[in-house]
Formats: sequence, C-alpha cells, structure tokens
Amino acid sequence: MNKERLRKILEQLHDGCLEVDDACRLLDTLPFEDLGFAKLDHHRPLRDHFPEVVFCQGKSIEQIITIFEQLTLQSDLILGTRATQAVYDSVRERLTDIKYDPTARVLYINRSAAPSIGHVAIVTAGTADIPVAEEAAVCLGVMGAVVSRFYDVGVAGIHRLLARVNEINQAEVIIVVAGMEGALASVVGGLTNKPVIAVPTSVGYGASFNGLAALLAMLNSCASGVGVVNIDNGYGAAALAATILKTFRG
Amino acid sequence: MNKERLRKILEQLHDGCLEVDDACRLLDTLPFEDLGFAKLDHHRPLRDHFPEVVFCQGKSIEQIITIFEQLTLQSDLILGTRATQAVYDSVRERLTDIKYDPTARVLYINRSAAPSIGHVAIVTAGTADIPVAEEAAVCLGVMGAVVSRFYDVGVAGIHRLLARVNEINQAEVIIVVAGMEGALASVVGGLTNKPVIAVPTSVGYGASFNGLAALLAMLNSCASGVGVVNIDNGYGAAALAATILKTFRG
Amino acid sequence: MNKERLRKILEQLHDGCLEVDDACRLLDTLPFEDLGFAKLDHHRPLRDHFPEVVFCQGKSIEQIITIFEQLTLQSDLILGTRATQAVYDSVRERLTDIKYDPTARVLYINRSAAPSIGHVAIVTAGTADIPVAEEAAVCLGVMGAVVSRFYDVGVAGIHRLLARVNEINQAEVIIVVAGMEGALASVVGGLTNKPVIAVPTSVGYGASFNGLAALLAMLNSCASGVGVVNIDNGYGAAALAATILKTFRG
Amino acid sequence: MNKERLRKILEQLHDGCLEVDDACRLLDTLPFEDLGFAKLDHHRPLRDHFPEVVFCQGKSIEQIITIFEQLTLQSDLILGTRATQAVYDSVRERLTDIKYDPTARVLYINRSAAPSIGHVAIVTAGTADIPVAEEAAVCLGVMGAVVSRFYDVGVAGIHRLLARVNEINQAEVIIVVAGMEGALASVVGGLTNKPVIAVPTSVGYGASFNGLAALLAMLNSCASGVGVVNIDNGYGAAALAATILKTFRG
Amino acid sequence: MNKERLRKILEQLHDGCLEVDDACRLLDTLPFEDLGFAKLDHHRPLRDHFPEVVFCQGKSIEQIITIFEQLTLQSDLILGTRATQAVYDSVRERLTDIKYDPTARVLYINRSAAPSIGHVAIVTAGTADIPVAEEAAVCLGVMGAVVSRFYDVGVAGIHRLLARVNEINQAEVIIVVAGMEGALASVVGGLTNKPVIAVPTSVGYGASFNGLAALLAMLNSCASGVGVVNIDNGYGAAALAATILKTFRG
Amino acid sequence: MNKERLRKILEQLHDGCLEVDDACRLLDTLPFEDLGFAKLDHHRPLRDHFPEVVFCQGKSIEQIITIFEQLTLQSDLILGTRATQAVYDSVRERLTDIKYDPTARVLYINRSAAPSIGHVAIVTAGTADIPVAEEAAVCLGVMGAVVSRFYDVGVAGIHRLLARVNEINQAEVIIVVAGMEGALASVVGGLTNKPVIAVPTSVGYGASFNGLAALLAMLNSCASGVGVVNIDNGYGAAALAATILKTFRG
Amino acid sequence: MNKERLRKILEQLHDGCLEVDDACRLLDTLPFEDLGFAKLDHHRPLRDHFPEVVFCQGKSIEQIITIFEQLTLQSDLILGTRATQAVYDSVRERLTDIKYDPTARVLYINRSAAPSIGHVAIVTAGTADIPVAEEAAVCLGVMGAVVSRFYDVGVAGIHRLLARVNEINQAEVIIVVAGMEGALASVVGGLTNKPVIAVPTSVGYGASFNGLAALLAMLNSCASGVGVVNIDNGYGAAALAATILKTFRG
Amino acid sequence: MNKERLRKILEQLHDGCLEVDDACRLLDTLPFEDLGFAKLDHHRPLRDHFPEVVFCQGKSIEQIITIFEQLTLQSDLILGTRATQAVYDSVRERLTDIKYDPTARVLYINRSAAPSIGHVAIVTAGTADIPVAEEAAVCLGVMGAVVSRFYDVGVAGIHRLLARVNEINQAEVIIVVAGMEGALASVVGGLTNKPVIAVPTSVGYGASFNGLAALLAMLNSCASGVGVVNIDNGYGAAALAATILKTFRG
Repeated sequence: MNKERLRKILEQLHDGCLEVDDACRLLDTLPFEDLGFAKLDHHRPLRDHFPEVVFCQGKSIEQIITIFEQLTLQSDLILGTRATQAVYDSVRERLTDIKYDPTARVLYINRSAAPSIGHVAIVTAGTADIPVAEEAAVCLGVMGAVVSRFYDVGVAGIHRLLARVNEINQAEVIIVVAGMEGALASVVGGLTNKPVIAVPTSVGYGASFNGLAALLAMLNSCASGVGVVNIDNGYGAAALAATILKTFRG
Repeated sequence: MNKERLRKILEQLHDGCLEVDDACRLLDTLPFEDLGFAKLDHHRPLRDHFPEVVFCQGKSIEQIITIFEQLTLQSDLILGTRATQAVYDSVRERLTDIKYDPTARVLYINRSAAPSIGHVAIVTAGTADIPVAEEAAVCLGVMGAVVSRFYDVGVAGIHRLLARVNEINQAEVIIVVAGMEGALASVVGGLTNKPVIAVPTSVGYGASFNGLAALLAMLNSCASGVGVVNIDNGYGAAALAATILKTFRG
Repeated sequence: MNKERLRKILEQLHDGCLEVDDACRLLDTLPFEDLGFAKLDHHRPLRDHFPEVVFCQGKSIEQIITIFEQLTLQSDLILGTRATQAVYDSVRERLTDIKYDPTARVLYINRSAAPSIGHVAIVTAGTADIPVAEEAAVCLGVMGAVVSRFYDVGVAGIHRLLARVNEINQAEVIIVVAGMEGALASVVGGLTNKPVIAVPTSVGYGASFNGLAALLAMLNSCASGVGVVNIDNGYGAAALAATILKTFRG
Repeated sequence: MNKERLRKILEQLHDGCLEVDDACRLLDTLPFEDLGFAKLDHHRPLRDHFPEVVFCQGKSIEQIITIFEQLTLQSDLILGTRATQAVYDSVRERLTDIKYDPTARVLYINRSAAPSIGHVAIVTAGTADIPVAEEAAVCLGVMGAVVSRFYDVGVAGIHRLLARVNEINQAEVIIVVAGMEGALASVVGGLTNKPVIAVPTSVGYGASFNGLAALLAMLNSCASGVGVVNIDNGYGAAALAATILKTFRG
Repeated sequence: MNKERLRKILEQLHDGCLEVDDACRLLDTLPFEDLGFAKLDHHRPLRDHFPEVVFCQGKSIEQIITIFEQLTLQSDLILGTRATQAVYDSVRERLTDIKYDPTARVLYINRSAAPSIGHVAIVTAGTADIPVAEEAAVCLGVMGAVVSRFYDVGVAGIHRLLARVNEINQAEVIIVVAGMEGALASVVGGLTNKPVIAVPTSVGYGASFNGLAALLAMLNSCASGVGVVNIDNGYGAAALAATILKTFRG
Repeated sequence: MNKERLRKILEQLHDGCLEVDDACRLLDTLPFEDLGFAKLDHHRPLRDHFPEVVFCQGKSIEQIITIFEQLTLQSDLILGTRATQAVYDSVRERLTDIKYDPTARVLYINRSAAPSIGHVAIVTAGTADIPVAEEAAVCLGVMGAVVSRFYDVGVAGIHRLLARVNEINQAEVIIVVAGMEGALASVVGGLTNKPVIAVPTSVGYGASFNGLAALLAMLNSCASGVGVVNIDNGYGAAALAATILKTFRG
Repeated sequence: MNKERLRKILEQLHDGCLEVDDACRLLDTLPFEDLGFAKLDHHRPLRDHFPEVVFCQGKSIEQIITIFEQLTLQSDLILGTRATQAVYDSVRERLTDIKYDPTARVLYINRSAAPSIGHVAIVTAGTADIPVAEEAAVCLGVMGAVVSRFYDVGVAGIHRLLARVNEINQAEVIIVVAGMEGALASVVGGLTNKPVIAVPTSVGYGASFNGLAALLAMLNSCASGVGVVNIDNGYGAAALAATILKTFRG
Repeated sequence: MNKERLRKILEQLHDGCLEVDDACRLLDTLPFEDLGFAKLDHHRPLRDHFPEVVFCQGKSIEQIITIFEQLTLQSDLILGTRATQAVYDSVRERLTDIKYDPTARVLYINRSAAPSIGHVAIVTAGTADIPVAEEAAVCLGVMGAVVSRFYDVGVAGIHRLLARVNEINQAEVIIVVAGMEGALASVVGGLTNKPVIAVPTSVGYGASFNGLAALLAMLNSCASGVGVVNIDNGYGAAALAATILKTFRG
C-alpha cells in the first residue's frame, strides 16, 4: 500500500502533475510509519508470513473484538492467545470464521492456507504441561508448520522418552515444555542434533516458585543447542521455531 | 559390535545350537549400554561435526593438558573455553598447533577446515560485552560459520544500531550480547525476521545483580523470535547458532 | 495561631507582665508541633499547589467519604487514586462535583483551575500499560500540566516510536510506562535530552515477576537522565514530573 | 544532507532525467542511517552540552588512554568514572591537562568552562556514602552546576538534618545518597518541594544485600517527588539532575 | 507426679526395700518427659501471666470453638488472633463472655483483670498500618499494658512525628508499625532512648514485595536499640513488649 | 506381553520359520519401549509394590475418572493426592471401592493388602502442619507402613517433644513436618540416630515466604542425617520413606 | 548556647531594649538547629550513657584516628566495631589507653567505669558464631552490663542447651547468636520468659545464602518474645539489650 | 562420672547416711547436664558408630590441632572436612597417623576399622562435581561403607548413564551429585528403586546462582524417592546415607 502511494507520488512528479516542492512536502508529511514500512521491506517477509498476534489476557471482550475486526481488514491470518471460551463466544458473533482451541486457549482466523514451513516436534514432561504445549502447537499450525506431539515423556520414566527419540529427531526444530525441575530440556538436548527451544512452565508447587526452578534449570542446561523462552510462553516458542524455519525453509 | 553379538545369538538359535530359553536369558543379560550405543547412532552425526569442548575454568593446567591430549587422539577440532593465558602457555608446550584468543579466552585446535555452515551476526550493546561476544565468535569460526561483528551499538544511541540494521539482516542467525538492562535483544528482535539468540552478560553493577536484570529483560522480550541462553554464555549462543545452521545448511 | 501565641508571650514580657524566667519556661513547654508548623512554612508552598491525595485501595467506602469530606473543607483540589467505580458511585452522592476516570481509576475534585505548570509527554510500550499511564495523565491534568499521550510505541516495532520522537521531545518532562522487559525507557532516554521518569508496570507474566524485570531494566538503563519510581506507580511519576515543573515553571 | 539528496532525486524525476522505477529503486537503497542521522539532529543538542563519559571500571589502562585521546579530538569536556589512581597516573602522561578526584574516582578534562546550569544539593546519610556523593558532585561541577554538600545527616539523628533543611531547600534539585535502610530519601522528600533524586548505596552488611534494602526503601518512598537511580550510581544522579537543570535553565 | 514417683523410689531405697543397683536402673528408665516437666517448672511463670494464644487463620470455626472451650477450663485469659467476624459470631454462642475487636481481628476472654505491667507506645506510619497496630494494642491491653496510640505519623510529614515525640517517650517500650519503605523505625529509634520494636507491614505495592522492603529497611536501621519481628506480626510485637515489661515490672 | 512377543520371534527362528536376517530386522523395528520395558525389569519391583500415583490438583474431574479407571485395569493399589471432596464424590460413582481422607486430601484404592514394610514416625511442629503430615501418613499406610503420629510438638515448647523422643525413636524412619522457621527438623535430627526426612510447609505468613524460610532452615540443618523434600510435599516424604523401608525390609 | 541566646533576646525584650516585632523577627530567623538542640535535650540522656560508636570497616586508618581523637574530647566511652589488629596498632600510638579485643574486633576507650546496668546472657549455636557473640559481649561490657557466655549449645545436641537453661534464665535479657538454620532462637525463646534478641550470623554455606536462612528462621520463630537484628550485627544486639536494661535499670 | 555421683547419693541413702528429703534436694540441684548425658544413652549409639566431625573451614590451624587432639582422647574415628593441604601439613606434625585426601579436602584418623555398613553408589554429572562427591566418598569409607563411583555421567549424554544403571542399582543407597541444572537426580531417581540422596553443587555460572538452580531442580524432582541436602554438602549426604545403612544394616 505504502509503496503504491509512494509510486503514485513519484509518477505524478514524473508526469508533471506535481511540483518538486509539493512532492517534498508530501513525502515530509507522509506518516513516518509509511517510510518506516518501506524501510522495513527488508524484514517485511517476516511480518508477511507471520500472523498478527493479540495477547487477549487482561483485555476486555470489547477491545478484543475491535482489534480483531481491524486486523481482519489487512491480514488473513490472526492469532489471539490466552483467550477464554467467553471471549470466543463473543467474538464469533462478529467474525463467524474465527476458530478456537480451548486447551491451547488460542483464537485464530486463517483465511488463506499458510505455505508449509517445516516440521516441529513438541515434547512435554507431564500432562499438566499440555496447555502450554498446545499454545505452541496451535500457533505453529496456523503459521504453516507440521507439528508432532510427544506428551508426558518426562525424565522420571526415561524409557518413555528414549522410545520416541528417533521420531522426535525427524523434526527440524524441537520444543521442550516442562515444569517442576525442567530436566527434560537437558535430556532431549543431549539426544538430538536439532535446535531445542525450552519452555519452562509454572507447573509444580512449593520450591518450583511458579516456574523459576524449571527456568533456571533450562538456562543452566548442560546440553548445548538449547535456547530458552519465558515461563509458560508457548507462543514465544512457536514464534522462534517458525522464525528459524522461515529463515531457512520459507 | 552389539549387532554382531545379537546376530551371533540369533544364528545359534537358528542353527539349533541354542534353545529358546537360553536365548531369552542371554538377551536379558545383554548389557544395556550396547543397545544404548547402537540406539544412539542416529544422533552420532551431531557429535561428528561439533568440536569437542572443554570448560577450562576451575580445572588445573595438568588436567587441561591431559584432556586435550586425549581428545586430539579422536578429534581434529577441539575448543577450550574460559582459558587463561597461563593455560595456553602451558598447553602449547605439548600441543604445538594449539591456538589462543585472549579476548575470547578460547583455546582451539583445528586440524581440518570445517565446512562452511552459514553466516551469523553478533551484536553487542557495549564494549564491555565484547569478551562474551568474542567467545561466541571464535567458537563459531572454529565450527565453520562466517561471523559479522556489530559491537557497541546499544540502545542508548539507537541510531548506531539503525545504521547497521541492513547489514545485520544479511546474517541467517543473530546473536545479541548485552548486559545492564539488556534492551538490545528486544530492539534487534523487532528489526529482523531472523532468529535471535540473546546472551545476557554480567556487565553492570548494583541492581544488575550480576546479569539478572539483563536475563529477565531478555526472557520478557516483547519481540518474538528470541531465545535466551545463560548469563555470559557466549559458547552456548554459538552452539545454538551452529545447531540451527547445521540443521538446515550442514 | 502559634505565631499569635508566641507573640502574646513576647508582648507580656515586653509589657512587664511576665518575667524572663517564666517566659523561658513557657517557650520550653510550648508544644513542639506549633514551632514545627511555623518552621514548615518554608515548604508549605509545596503542599499549597499540590492536590491532597488519597490512596483509596484498601480503605472502606465509609473511610474514603469521610476523608474526602474533611479534605474539601481545606482544599479545592483533591485526588483519590486506585478508586473503583463503586467508590465513585458512593462518594458522588455526598460530593456532587467529584469526577471519576475509570481507566485511570482516579477520583478528583478540582474546584479552582490549577495554573498551567508545563508540558509532559507520557509514552507507553503497550496498550496494557495504559491504566498506569492514565493514572499519571489524569493526576497531571488536575495538577495543571498539559499531557501528550504516545501509547503503544514499544520497542518491538521501533519505527512506531521513531515516528513520534519529535513530538515527544516537545515536552519538558517525559514519562515512560512499560512492563515486560521495560526496554522503552532506555530507548527513549537515548532519543531525548529531557528528563525521563520511568514507570515499570506489572504487565507481563512468568519471569516478569510482577514487574521486577521491568524495574531492574529501568534501574540499569544505559541511557542517562532517567529516574525510576515504583512498579505501577503512575501517581508517583506524575508527582515527580509536577515537582520538577513547579520548581522551574510554577 | 539527506533532504538534499532526496530532493535531487525528485528533481531528476521531475525533469525527466529519471524514470519512476529507477527513483523507486534509489529510494529503496537510500541508506537508512542517513535518514536516521537527519532524524536525530533534533536531539543532537543533548550530546552537545553533556560531557562525553567513560565508565573506566573493567577497561585496561591502554583502552582508557585510547578512548580519552579520541574523545579529546571532538570534545572539550570529558568525564571518566570509576577510575583508579593508577589509571590517572598513566593517562596524565599523555593528556597533561586531565584532572582526578580520588574520593569520587572521577577523571575529567574541562577545556572550556561550562555555563552555569543551576544549583544542586547533595545530602548523604553517612560518611561511607561520601564517595558515591562525590562522584555525583564532581560530575555536576564539570557539567556546570553549583553543588552544596550536606554530608552525614542520616535519620538516626534527625536534628542534624532538620538543622540544614532551609539550606538544602535553596537548591533546585536535591540528590539524596544513602545506604543501609535508605530512609533519608523519604524524610528529605517530605521536607522539600524540590525534585529529589535518590541514590541507594551498597553501604551496609548482612540484610542490606549490597544495597537492595536501600533501593527497595527508596522505590517505596511514602514521600512524593522522588525518582530513584541504580545502586551506587552517583553519575546517574548527576546526569538526571543536569538534564533537569538544562531543560529549564540551560 | 514425677516428683512423687522419684520420692517413692528414694524412700524405698532408704527403707531398704530397694537395692542401689535396682534404684539406678529404675532412674535410668524413668521417662524423660517426667524429669522434663519438673525441669520446666522454672519457666512456668512465663506461661502463667501470658494469655493462651490461638492463631485462628486457617482453622475451621469448629476447631476454634473446641480449642477455646478447652482453654477456658485452665485459663482466665485467652487471645485469638486473625479471627473474622464470622468466627466471633459463632464462638460467642458458646462462650458468652468472649469479646471481639474487628479492626485488630482479635478475640479475647479476660475473666480476671491482668495486673498492670507498664506503658507501651504504638506508632504507625499510615492509616493502613492500623490493623496490625491494633492487633498489638488489643493484645497488650489484655496482657495488662497501658497503650498510647500515635497513628499516621509517617516520615513523609516529619512534623507530625516530631510534634508527638515527647509523648511517645513517656512509654517504656515503643512499637513502630510501618509498611512501604519502613523508614519510621529508624527515625523513631533516633529520637528515643527506649527499646523500639519494629513491625514491618505488607502495606504497599509493587517493589514493596508484600512487606519485604519494610522488613529489610528495619533490619538495616541506622538507629540502635531496634529489634524486628515478622511482617504484619502485631501479636509478636506485643508479646516481646510484654515480655520486656514483665521481666522488669511484673 | 513384550517378552511374549520376543519369545515368539525367537521360537519362530528356532523352529526355522524365520531367517536370521528377518529376525534381526524384526528386533530392530520392535518398538524401543518394548525392549525398554524388558530392560526395566530390574527395577520393576519398585513399581510393583508402589501404588500408581495421580496428582489430582489442576486436573478436571473427567480426567481423573478416566485415569483412575485405566489404572484399575493394571493395579490394585492407586493413590490420588491433592484431591477435593468434589473429586471424591464424582469418582466413587464409578469406582465404588475408592476411599478418601479429607484431611490428607488423598483418594485411594487398595484392593490387596500391601505387605508390611516397616515403621515410620511422623512429627509435626503445629496443628496447621497436619494436612501435609496426613498426606504422608495416608500414603504410607496404603504402601504398607505402620505410622505413628506425633503432632504439635514444635520447638517453642521443647518439653512436648522431649517427652515423646523415646517413642519417636522406635520408628525406622522419621518424617518431620514443619512450617514457619522449620527448626523442628534440626532438633529431632539431634535426638535420633534414624534417618530424618524433613518436609517444609507453607504454614506461616510474612517472611515465611510460603515455606521458603522453613525450606532454607531444613537444608541448613546443623544436625546430620536429614534429607529434605519440596515444600508441602507430604507424598514425596512418604515415597522416600517407603523406598528406604522397601530397600531394606521389603 | 542556644538557650543563652534565646534568654538574651527575652531579657532585651523585658528590659525594653527590643520591640515585640523585632523579637518575633529574631526568633523567626533563629537557626532551627538551635531550637532543635534544645528540643533534643529530652533524649540527650540516651546519648549520655551510651558510648560513641565508630563502624571502622571501610574507613582508612587515618580517618579512624581522627574520629577517635575528636570523640575523646567529648566522651569517656568510645567503641570501634569491626576494627582490625592493624587499626588497633596504629590508633594506640596516638591514644595509649585504647584497648582491643581481637575476637570481637572491637576497639574501646573506657575512661570512667560505666555504672552496672544489669545481666545479659549470650548464647551461641556453634563456635563459628563466637566472633559475633563477642562483639555483643565486649560492647555490653563497656556499656556496664554483666555478660554470661553460653557458647556452642546448638540444637543438634539439645542436651547441651537444656543443661544450661537455668543459668541462662538468670539473665534479664538473652541474646541468641546462630547461623546455618538459626533454630536456636526458637528453642531458647520457648525455654525462657525473658526477652530474647536473635542475631542471625553468616556462618554456613550453600543455601544459608550468607545468613538469609538464619534470618528468615528467626523472623518466623514460633516462640514469642523474640526480636531480630541484622545478620552478624553483634553490636546491634548489645545496643538493644543495653537500651532495655537502661530503660528499666539505669 | 555422673553415674558415679548419682550412685554415691543412692548408696548414702541406702546406707542411711542421707535422708530422703536431702536426697531429693541433691537430685534437684544435680546439674541437668549430668542427667542429660545419662538420658542421652538411648541415642548414644548414633554417636558411637559415627566419627566425630570437624568443619575446618574458617578455623585457624591452632584451633583445628587443639580440637583434633582433644577428640583423639575419646574417639578412634575423627573426620575433618573442608581442610586445606596446609592444615594437614600442620596437624600431622602432632598427630602422625592422620590421613588426608586432597580432592575431598578431608582429614581423618581411623584407629579401629569400622564394621562394614553397606554399599553406596555415588554418581556425578560432571568432573567438576568430583570434589563434593569425594567428600561424600571418603567420609563414607571412614564410616565403613563400600563406595562405588560413577563419575561424569550427566544427562547431556544420557547413554553414559544408561550404560551404568545396572551397576548403580547394586548399591543400597545412591548419592547423586550435580551442579548446573541438576537434572541427573530426577533421571537417576526414575531409573532406580533405591533411596536417592541428591547433592546440588555450586558448579556452574550465571543463572546457576551458586547452586540455587540445581537445588531447586532437585527439590522439584518429578521422580519419587529423592531427598535433598545443602549445596556442596558432600558430608551431609554421606551422613544421611550412613544413617540409613546403620539403621537397617548396623
């Protein structure tokens, strides 16, 4: 859009319909964000194949509807994370093609199929980590990734994990989701040569300190090739995985 | 080896030299580690194109020499991180082709040129972050990556960073190294569509709490596509970057 | 009153109705608070052009009404922060000219227009930071400042901020409100030569630790000219900004 | 410069010397930093009347000399903080007009008298806080402020402070430097209508946790009009005070 | 009972009904608790003039009634702290002479007037600290102390405190109750030569971290003669004050 | 099942119905978990005499019923911890022989009497620690241990503990459950030569920081022979005690 | 002096040498500190029977000598805490009657015997706590208290403590000094009816976090009648004990 | 001695040289510690088969020699932990049969062979954890345990651990020593049915926060049967293991 607007100005100038001074003034008053967007063309592709994302928690239903309606004007691909069923029920009255995943608490509109960007394995330590894992999984699906789920393979029963290692290693990026002591990230990191994105979760109690124990464990992982995102940040892991895939596969 | 031993048992069974019950008992007592090693063949390649790495800090010079001598028997590519000049001076008496980078505090032996694996940009907020950045840079160089350095482009003078954004975006993976408030990771994350690996450093004083402030900032980055490693862990960032590159480029 | 009482003693002494020893003893037992108040005249002006402020959270509606009624006897300018709609509904039954801003959660009575004290820009990283920003904005408005709002210009999309820098720099004091990693304070600090007041917010989750991450980031800002107030303390930022403006403009 | 370059392109287009497609391509490749620098002209003045500042701690003497020599080519006013006597002894061999304050640990070159910018009071709780206070005082002196020192007036003997309140209130900005429980900031804040910049120090032991106790106390100050900087950050307080003064007095 | 049992053994020995060896063996197996109880007679008086205290929070109404009924069989003086109105309403159906202070959230039965033990001043920084102060005040009243209240004399308006210093110093023990930055303990400590018991409260928000800021401030008090109890522990302060008074006045 | 499948392959090989190569290929593709299970036979006994355990908190009633129904197919002994009365009411509609202990919040099915494994003493500091102690006690009972309870013998009245020491020492393992300052673990540790398992509880307020104070105290115990589990982890203490008993008594 | 000046004004007024208006104006401008000093007469006694105290740590030998020399002009009783042997060696060259206790690291001048103020028991958990205990003991001795030492009676061997309880209870105030888990304060608190001052020490390692574990334990003491001072603050405990004794015994 | 004194009283009573009342009074005043020691016979066996242990760190060589010389008078088995080579060199001049292990930093005298108490496996994650492991190993050896060492089998290369699982499971108690993320404790806990004692170490940097990360991970272990001791507390793990073994095997 901006490029078109810029080109129109340049064409009018070229065609003599516009004087140089007027063109300067127009460019000057052209909102900076426009120049900004033009400038940002180099990383435009990122925005292009990334959905617009709304963090719904703490926003009113009114606000969320307004934001979604605005976004649908410019994007075919919209994600809303941390959305309740009540939010979904209200939003779909206005946007009938919106979909909702209650476990992942993710709302999404996906009007044009995203091109396939690659394959991500998502591994969780326990069943309580699944909502965070599903936030990652649903987001990745919307972004065009194939997701393989390996849930409840925590290190207390290491054979459950070992039995699935070959399958996990089929993926190009591995997301490990674990609360409590977060040891799974290190163990998976030692069993793969793929990049590992570790997501600590707030699953646990007492000295888990709402995910701090898992977070510290993952940051201190003795395995190499592990990057960490914020506690319970399933979307963040998905975004990093998709960024990696798009950089090389997109 | 294990496979051979297993096959021998099966052949004996097939040939009637062994009864089913005996075969069962033999398989039962077959050492686990053997099957384990066979199993691990699938991720063996990871180790193959990664250097062996020695964390030198806290080890005596004697121990480091011994470890390096052992490693040279099986690997052409060895890294020693957090090594002092004194360690280098002693080790090179025995391993004359060992090299040392005093800023990065990295020792390395590189007897066969690593195949090129891709391009990494390393960005630092200040000059005090350079040793951590160089640990990443030297390790990446040994692993076969081309490294572009963008040092001292912290957010207090945002124009320094903006002036280099196009160049930074040439890389396939971006490592951001920053202490104090660690804001650079978020800003770079917002200006690129490449995966960002954030390394908090212990640069700062007072309420930086030895890197905690930068670590928390990076984990809470409002930009997406950012993974975080441990404080001052230049090697860890290099390993993650190389893992990504090798997965897609190797 | 104190001055009168003091003068009476002195007059009696002067008139010979009182001996020196008795005067000494009287002055000795003159309640300290009286001299104290006289002494405090020097900073009385501070209180004079500041509104009386009531922190409503944790107070009963009864208590708040009583306090407001008492304050209206001596002041034309009263602020109540962290007030709910229910508080407002009850208080306005008794004080019909009280006003309420539901986003800022601020109650106020403003019976005499405050003299203009200057111009403050309030900048937020995200939309979730707006309630804290509005607490500052509404309080500043009551205190007589002109407020310009620059909301949702966080560093993940730095062009949004850069597009507004010139406007922001029109202000004499800049308040930056940000949660999550709080990087905006450093970036704004680097783009202005005006004093910056940084307000960390509890916006975020996980390793934001209820605003600790943003707080630490702001305290470690690599930009100079930045002072920090408590987490979510919009009023505190307003008070500091107004103090600066009144010192020089009042 | 950029504007000229932009105008030249537009003129060529207008004159038919350039096709629209070529103009688009030229605008696309116009280096960002150029627009960036143009943009930044507006805040250039900030840098103009501030000294260049070097944080010497953790830099080698070689590095410091190099940086100072480079800076003297473009600035008459240079500060080096956290500098040891040894650094000074070495640097003055090359830069003979450099001066050093051993208590403040500040190096400075001041080749043109800074214009007077106003009056700052610096108040400390104890004698152990003096080095941090002097870092602020010396830096402010170089920046052109008149500094009044009120040292060792901590709250354990409140009369020491009360006796000086009138003098302290003569200043336009007050810097309060305190370790241990940091109560002085609140008490001073309650006795003045001037902006207060609070500097927690690491003075103390045990549960002072290297300044954390004072930092938290200052952030929670029940007095209004108080902004906080990092622990032991005397320079930071000076920079904020000078920024305020220059905004209104400069 | 134990004494009797011991005496019986000694009498049997004296009367020749028991041999020395048997007596030794009997004494050896004499249950420890018996001697223990005898031993504890010396500090029995402590319990005698202290009320029995029940921490009601987290106990069911059933449990509280049962405990109170049991205690009334052996004590004329019973305190219940952290009790809700609902608890009181239920308990008084069974124990008609029980009293309740809703601000202090203290239940008490006081069937025999406690002898006067002395005079305690209770000082609070703000009105929000009053419930904790009243917990101390009501408990002290039941224990026989005269209590003078000095509420809302925080350091932000130091004249409010200074005006009351002489009155405060009439007490033999001073309890200071303050949240936020907790500076009041240091200031009072510097203005008195009486023992000061500091009670941090959880009043505040953000970086008060639920009373941690006030707690650390009080532990680091630059004034001497200050002892600290747990956050919000009004009863604990009362118990320490009463212990001091009874040691010297009881 | 796996063993049967393995044996079938071996029998076919032995009977000539299968060639060696085919057998190798079959074993190769035999799911790892199958070999894993065979391998895990060595520690199978652990699982055999341990109940299956379900952490109910955070799971829906639906999920808990499903899990319990599945588990009853393979185990006679099932524990559900942190279960509410509502969960019990729902589950027993489907599993009529399920039992519930409301204090311990433990659900259990115990269809075959566990063999006696030994004797455990459980000691608590206060009555508020009893729910955690009962979680341990009920779990141990289901696992076959005899449990002796010594509740409310905290160190503030040391004679209560001393009176019971001989009885406590009859046990083979001692579990100490304490909140607040957690001193009981050290005192019991000094009075016994049996292994002590310390369970910090979140009982307390203010600076107990939800059990952190007790946890740190127990980790720093000056008595030897003390191992610590997570805050409020009654089940964990029971599991460790049972593991010790079964290792030596089972 | 102030009183004289005040009296002079009053006499002049009385004698007719001064008009009332002039007297008012004179009193108005009478420096606050003067009235302040008069006002402070009421708490002067506190300072009178307390030694002047110098915290030597972090001060140069020059500074310490100067301070001691100044103090000897106005006080017969001076304490210097945290003083090294080197400080003592230097100071006694100038002040020949200065004494030094190397364990307590306390310097003192005691030129007039302090009147006896009472009896304090000091109890330590281990031998490593003795330096902190001796700081308290030596300071109390200089202040005029009789001190009984009960060292190395920690709770791991509770009999050591129980054996001394009667003796400990002879004191009027009990100071408990303990590191590691700090349990001794609670146990002593439960065995006495005297006020207990708890001093956490930094003795320990790992999760003692430099005394934090003991500090938290003492603040959460389940025994009543316990006040806490800063980690390693032997002087603080002595000052509080002496304040209590002087209030009632002085 | 006490027993003798007690017997003398009983004999005098028996012989009629003492009246019952006098005997009662004598026993009453008999120092508690005497009865205490008699009483402690019941747990004496603990002390009997445990070595006396001296924590050498922070003690002077003089003190250590004195303590060792005293201990050798009453015990054949003495341990000194955290002892330097210099301590050993000095002590052996006086106690020629003292031995020293420089890796474990343990001094010991073992004059009578301890009876065998059982078998302990010690497992470490890395080579840097070996000193802590050896502290445990050497202490256990002196206490009579057979120790099997499994060093450097951390989870980053899980096959190293899996290969040794059967051997590890031969032990009756397993000690797991790990720093960094401490994941090894959970993995071992899941692979064994033996009690696991987890020792976090301070090995690591940055966000390991001196062992806090490993400590939290171990406390949150998803495997059951795991007890945790303090950071770097090799001796503590040995003492708990020996306590378990002696309870069942001794």
